[in-house]
Amino acid sequence: MTEITRPTLIIDKAVCLQNIERMAKKAEKYQLRLRPHFKTHQAAKIGEWFKLFGISQITVSSVLMAEYFASNGWNDITLAFSLNILEINRINRLADSIKLNVLVENKEAAEVLALQATNKVGVYLKIDTGYNRTGIPAGRTGRIDSILDVLSKNSKLTFKGFLTHTGHTYNALSTNEIFSSHFDALLKLKKLKNNYKKNYPGMELSMGDTPSATICGNFDGIDEIRPGNFVFYDLMQHNLGVCDIADIAVKVVCPVIAKHVSRNEIVIYGGAIHFSKETVQNTDGKELYGRVIIKKGNEKVLLDTKNYLSRLSQEHGIIKVTPANFKQIKVGDLVEVIPVHSCLTANMMGHMITTEGEFIEMMPKY
Amino acid sequence: MTEITRPTLIIDKAVCLQNIERMAKKAEKYQLRLRPHFKTHQAAKIGEWFKLFGISQITVSSVLMAEYFASNGWNDITLAFSLNILEINRINRLADSIKLNVLVENKEAAEVLALQATNKVGVYLKIDTGYNRTGIPAGRTGRIDSILDVLSKNSKLTFKGFLTHTGHTYNALSTNEIFSSHFDALLKLKKLKNNYKKNYPGMELSMGDTPSATICGNFDGIDEIRPGNFVFYDLMQHNLGVCDIADIAVKVVCPVIAKHVSRNEIVIYGGAIHFSKETVQNTDGKELYGRVIIKKGNEKVLLDTKNYLSRLSQEHGIIKVTPANFKQIKVGDLVEVIPVHSCLTANMMGHMITTEGEFIEMMPKY
Repeated sequence: MTEITRPTLIIDKAVCLQNIERMAKKAEKYQLRLRPHFKTHQAAKIGEWFKLFGISQITVSSVLMAEYFASNGWNDITLAFSLNILEINRINRLADSIKLNVLVENKEAAEVLALQATNKVGVYLKIDTGYNRTGIPAGRTGRIDSILDVLSKNSKLTFKGFLTHTGHTYNALSTNEIFSSHFDALLKLKKLKNNYKKNYPGMELSMGDTPSATICGNFDGIDEIRPGNFVFYDLMQHNLGVCDIADIAVKVVCPVIAKHVSRNEIVIYGGAIHFSKETVQNTDGKELYGRVIIKKGNEKVLLDTKNYLSRLSQEHGIIKVTPANFKQIKVGDLVEVIPVHSCLTANMMGHMITTEGEFIEMMPKY
Repeated sequence: MTEITRPTLIIDKAVCLQNIERMAKKAEKYQLRLRPHFKTHQAAKIGEWFKLFGISQITVSSVLMAEYFASNGWNDITLAFSLNILEINRINRLADSIKLNVLVENKEAAEVLALQATNKVGVYLKIDTGYNRTGIPAGRTGRIDSILDVLSKNSKLTFKGFLTHTGHTYNALSTNEIFSSHFDALLKLKKLKNNYKKNYPGMELSMGDTPSATICGNFDGIDEIRPGNFVFYDLMQHNLGVCDIADIAVKVVCPVIAKHVSRNEIVIYGGAIHFSKETVQNTDGKELYGRVIIKKGNEKVLLDTKNYLSRLSQEHGIIKVTPANFKQIKVGDLVEVIPVHSCLTANMMGHMITTEGEFIEMMPKY
């Protein structure tokens, strides 16, 4: 900590290990395969931490990320992003060296796979269970049938089952809403399984965003979960009621540059290029970019939500504080900020340092 | 373009050169030194384009960026970020090899400089002219005097003058508001000059965000402007009335992944990790992350604001389009998206490609 002179992403490895262990045990309890999403950390070294808990199959969100983790020894990867047909050549190369699953949601992509897949590939159909982003709406069995029909034309392709991302849990205003979205998605997937199990006895169901994978207790009929964010958690998950502050493994340490007493504002070196511009609302409806931990004497104290990272420009952050806390903070101090969305913050920073001082490189951007 | 298979930041070099030339000519006309801010492009190669127009002095926003451009041959740099006292050692090293100016806004930073500066450094006092982010409020001459007093204790330090960033022009709702904020800042700086010119005859005034540097016509008493964004411009500047669409030199080219006819939505590969989450409002008050250019026949057409990048997750973008345009776009097409904030988008991407296919590397993140 004393060597930090500019915005630095700090990872608490012990907390990460705890988070991974808890999720691995939960998966075991419910007889689910845990195929964690590695887009949150994007780091080979953190991947190794998952191996300690028996993880050997992972999820990624881009061909680039699949290539990176494949080159770091992972040989069973689901590319959980509806097939980008322009990358078919790289997908073929990947499928030559590892066990690869891809997602398809339309005939165009199915046709490219049917015509051009040169190696064995597992194919999940991406199902929209209410997030309204990607996927075949769960009720559209006609579309499902026609895609399965196209896929059947290439014997390299194996239909693996149905996969969904219940991303609308991130917009929930209560944990009850998370339970409800999850249960609704579960029922939709189970109905599909009932319809297709006969013709495709090996098919599976895959779901599992971090909110529902963390707090839900009904995974009846589900084979696999794919949460990612849980390794770090963040303020967004805390605001959803999904994790405790103590479960959050990431902080951005930032130098204090200036103080403005007339506005009760602290200026930090730490801006949009460090945090991303993702916000959550604090208890009185104000948009915030992070919560703040300062040192009081020898103790680190998480300030309440009256104190928060309130504005960001490219490299500057403005922290609003109460007058009492204003006095505690000095120019040249380091403050810790809990970020809103750890996936985006980690992605921006490109590297991290553990609380023990270990440097962790993330995958290259291109 | 035909080789692009994933989100790619494309730079139109001819448009950049035009933008630089126009700003260089404007500076010449008003007898201003143009010290462009390089935080927008962060690329040594683009730096070279500025040299074609006689630029030899630049602005940066971090020690890291100063080091990067110094190592690429720039030897007169203003670090336009209020001094981070934790980086004093690196600042000393920089000042050993180049002509370096720093910004000070409080006694704490002045004292560190006075005690620890080992090489010649130019010091600007950062003045707040209404943006309310950093700087000494323009009227606080007592604070200015006490800081100047501290600085005078180290003969390595030269007081260079007053510097402001009129960043509130970015929040303007009309060009008149930009004129007004700029003029107000100008008057505040001139008043300071009148007060301090006698004791510091060499002192200067430096201002110049992109909106006011582009459209304002009164720089009376100002010595230097430091716009940055103008090299690329973007949707935000266009929305402010500062530039034409044709002046925008950056586009993110993105593959089309899926189409959802029931929502008139196009899913692209291109998300928060490519665009940043900065938004502007379209004409009917909706938040948008970018405007869209598609091919119609052999022509590229900018779609109107009823068609826009409406949602982003980590790697996905959702484009809302009218039914007529929906039919024009196919899975596997490449669409071009004009980003909201080119500085943040370029920073996220880490590299760019010119329309002629030249690869442009940006500075490393750490």
